[in-house]
Amino acid sequence: MSTPKIVTSSPKIIVHWLNQSRANYIIWFLEELGLTYEVKVYERDKNMRAPEELKKIHPLGKSPVLEVDGEILAESGYMMSYLLKNYDKDYRLTPSSIALQNKVDYYLHYSEGSFHPPEVMLVVLNVTRKKLPFGIKFLGGKILDAIADNYALPEVVTHLNYLENNLEGQEYFCGDKLSAADIILSFPLRNSLKLLRNPERERKNYPNVLAWLDRISKREGYKKAQEMDKEHPAKF
Amino acid sequence: MSTPKIVTSSPKIIVHWLNQSRANYIIWFLEELGLTYEVKVYERDKNMRAPEELKKIHPLGKSPVLEVDGEILAESGYMMSYLLKNYDKDYRLTPSSIALQNKVDYYLHYSEGSFHPPEVMLVVLNVTRKKLPFGIKFLGGKILDAIADNYALPEVVTHLNYLENNLEGQEYFCGDKLSAADIILSFPLRNSLKLLRNPERERKNYPNVLAWLDRISKREGYKKAQEMDKEHPAKF
Repeated sequence: MSTPKIVTSSPKIIVHWLNQSRANYIIWFLEELGLTYEVKVYERDKNMRAPEELKKIHPLGKSPVLEVDGEILAESGYMMSYLLKNYDKDYRLTPSSIALQNKVDYYLHYSEGSFHPPEVMLVVLNVTRKKLPFGIKFLGGKILDAIADNYALPEVVTHLNYLENNLEGQEYFCGDKLSAADIILSFPLRNSLKLLRNPERERKNYPNVLAWLDRISKREGYKKAQEMDKEHPAKF
Repeated sequence: MSTPKIVTSSPKIIVHWLNQSRANYIIWFLEELGLTYEVKVYERDKNMRAPEELKKIHPLGKSPVLEVDGEILAESGYMMSYLLKNYDKDYRLTPSSIALQNKVDYYLHYSEGSFHPPEVMLVVLNVTRKKLPFGIKFLGGKILDAIADNYALPEVVTHLNYLENNLEGQEYFCGDKLSAADIILSFPLRNSLKLLRNPERERKNYPNVLAWLDRISKREGYKKAQEMDKEHPAKF
């Protein structure tokens, strides 16, 4: 006699994955939800640019982009909130209280809307610095440093301090359970620590963040996403 | 005989408003929802910076920040989705279908997460250009132009083209009714058109966006928000 089984219809998900991008945390996110997915790999060129093919998937030509049952989803925060709403049936990543759910929603907006931009600006300034022709390397470097020091770097430090405080006395950003907030923040947080002027010395100012990074890096889904980047190393 | 009346409890809202900021669209948003609110005014200094007092409200020291019944809310997209969920009782800004509601949610993430950052970078480059000491004005200007031309400006143009296409055949971004998507996009869209290399000539490439700007600028709430900036002009 066979036991009747409830079958939940799983969506067909394709991840359009670009190396060295935020697409990694979507892989981790899907792993935590226990959803099955296919990965379509794209690689950045020598100038760090995403390939043109990505524009066929979504006109902005960015990654991550998801296909969920044929529908194209873009914007990491939106994708995560969409998947949580529709496919986190057993509340693996959804916290129990409305207050904590609101907090997750806040971080999904905060990470991309406030935290990422100064970090991206620092990356762009660093890339530009490397490309400066020899004749103007010194002066050009000074100007780029001035932009970084006057705007982007202090912003990154402000965010690191803010997040360090927010982790005080708790294991994850929204209480003591992993949530989408931790996953979306993982990429810019790791990157920001590397972008400090003296990363080795300054990272010590963020013990809560370091303990949290250590905690998340032990999760199977996180490791799986990291493996993806090792398999497709950067060419730039 | 008096007719019994249903009284909906209205939240006590304080808008921490900074001139020349995205706080304007929160004013417009609250006007469209028909909610009452108080405004606390902050003004930027000569270096375009927000005053320190704002850090007492929220550690990131940004505006807009809202207080809703004593709770502090930050991140424009999050604030709007929170207010829509809790206080748009008569569906003034909420579209009727789930598909359109998802679209609004997408734009609330897209506007701040993807559209704003390159525009903010262009503004920072322009401010830096103005501050360059006389001796390095020419060379420094060339370097700043190179960053703008290689990254920020093409990104802004990509977004303008994308949004122009998305408006094809419809009055507003999510169908034929004003939504939070229009409100959050209004500030970066207006700004982006001004940041083009030849604004006068290039804005003609965006007839749908111009018609939409004309349409929204006739709304009373939009005008009220614009008035706020006239009353508190920039000092920088």
